[in-house]
Amino acid sequence: MSSTIDPRRHRELARLLAQLGLDSSQLDKIAPLGFNWLLVDRALVHPSFSNTYNNDQLEFVGDSVLRLSVSLFLQERYGDRSVGELAALRSHLVSDQTLAKIAGAYDLQKYVVVSNAARNDSQALRSLLADALEALMAALYIATQDLAYVRKWLDPQMQNFAEALLAIPALGNYKVALQELTQGVWKRLPEYRNLPKDLLTGDDNSLPFHVEVWFNDRCWGQGQGKSIKAAQQAAAAIALEEMQKFLAATPQ
Amino acid sequence: MSSTIDPRRHRELARLLAQLGLDSSQLDKIAPLGFNWLLVDRALVHPSFSNTYNNDQLEFVGDSVLRLSVSLFLQERYGDRSVGELAALRSHLVSDQTLAKIAGAYDLQKYVVVSNAARNDSQALRSLLADALEALMAALYIATQDLAYVRKWLDPQMQNFAEALLAIPALGNYKVALQELTQGVWKRLPEYRNLPKDLLTGDDNSLPFHVEVWFNDRCWGQGQGKSIKAAQQAAAAIALEEMQKFLAATPQ
Repeated sequence: MSSTIDPRRHRELARLLAQLGLDSSQLDKIAPLGFNWLLVDRALVHPSFSNTYNNDQLEFVGDSVLRLSVSLFLQERYGDRSVGELAALRSHLVSDQTLAKIAGAYDLQKYVVVSNAARNDSQALRSLLADALEALMAALYIATQDLAYVRKWLDPQMQNFAEALLAIPALGNYKVALQELTQGVWKRLPEYRNLPKDLLTGDDNSLPFHVEVWFNDRCWGQGQGKSIKAAQQAAAAIALEEMQKFLAATPQ
Repeated sequence: MSSTIDPRRHRELARLLAQLGLDSSQLDKIAPLGFNWLLVDRALVHPSFSNTYNNDQLEFVGDSVLRLSVSLFLQERYGDRSVGELAALRSHLVSDQTLAKIAGAYDLQKYVVVSNAARNDSQALRSLLADALEALMAALYIATQDLAYVRKWLDPQMQNFAEALLAIPALGNYKVALQELTQGVWKRLPEYRNLPKDLLTGDDNSLPFHVEVWFNDRCWGQGQGKSIKAAQQAAAAIALEEMQKFLAATPQ
């Protein structure tokens, strides 16, 4: 199977996999047919480039490859923590934000095939890099039938993000952390405002709730989420960071 | 590892795995340590029975084992369909409702270890059987490192459910199907009512939206979902079934 791909693209993809710590010559020995390089090629083709040859189905599978890899990693590494904590960690670790950072660490933007319009839209680029990374996970899993080829490079990345998250005093509860901050400094609570319902897209995969957090006549953060609470947490996380910067710059 | 489990429980679990089409004597040869029967035992212990030895972490992983298995199955079997259709199918196939039916097909209630209170609550029982089935998938995957031991029995089940779903005229769009039915028979549309917001639990994993669908002064279905639209679809699916039963029994 490895012979059907353009030799230049093959070298390029081998370079990407080498960055992930995967040895191409070893991959080519995978039984029974050798490694399916076309699957990796396809994983990096965004639907904006082609309607027919693209990564949308691989991304559909890759989302689940990611989720299982992260779940196993968390259960093995942090099995002493509650399932609630693991679920909070997992929701951060599988987010587009985390994925886009990992994609950036491997220069994935150099390997993706995408329309110029999408490449020049930084918001779209972030989301398509996250999608391409998920599709790449699916390609690696399907071509090897072994999650080890994903976890080998993903686990250390996730370890770094998990440790950073666990260093935050109130993991998954930025609302409590923000409340403690405003109470401690100003003896008052922040106010959460729900943005109007007409912003609801009604799409199951979207984030229907939009919330702002206000304090001292100023909006400190906006958040979106699948529930009011999730949107408030997202808004509080941003407000917390902003307020900490503000306090650091302001003599009390 | 297989020696550390009570012999009677071992025989019981071997019987369950035989029902799944898995051969225990073959499993015991899995390298390097043989099959981990304790993991299967634990997968079937509900937290209502024990705070310390239970299946909550395995269920956390099993949810992802299920999702990956179903995603791969759908992509292999229905790869000619759009990703939107596959996602609609997947959301049905990984639901507690589907899982409870599969659990029932294998008499899982005979093998779960659970408090009497939970066993006598039929709603709780359904949900805990779905959880136990997910935990069992995690145990099989972790003990073998091979998704084949899950997909071997899960794929044929999912195939049946997927075919039944695809036979429904408007897959994933029960609202349209219901609307066509009420328009066709009575020339009027059903009405969706959102239940009050104080039912919001605020839990990210919960289903915050509760919707009822009304027609001719009668509530025909209730639904819950992560978005208004998902809740409406769930309600419409139930209403559609009820209304079809009603029409079949009523001379027009």
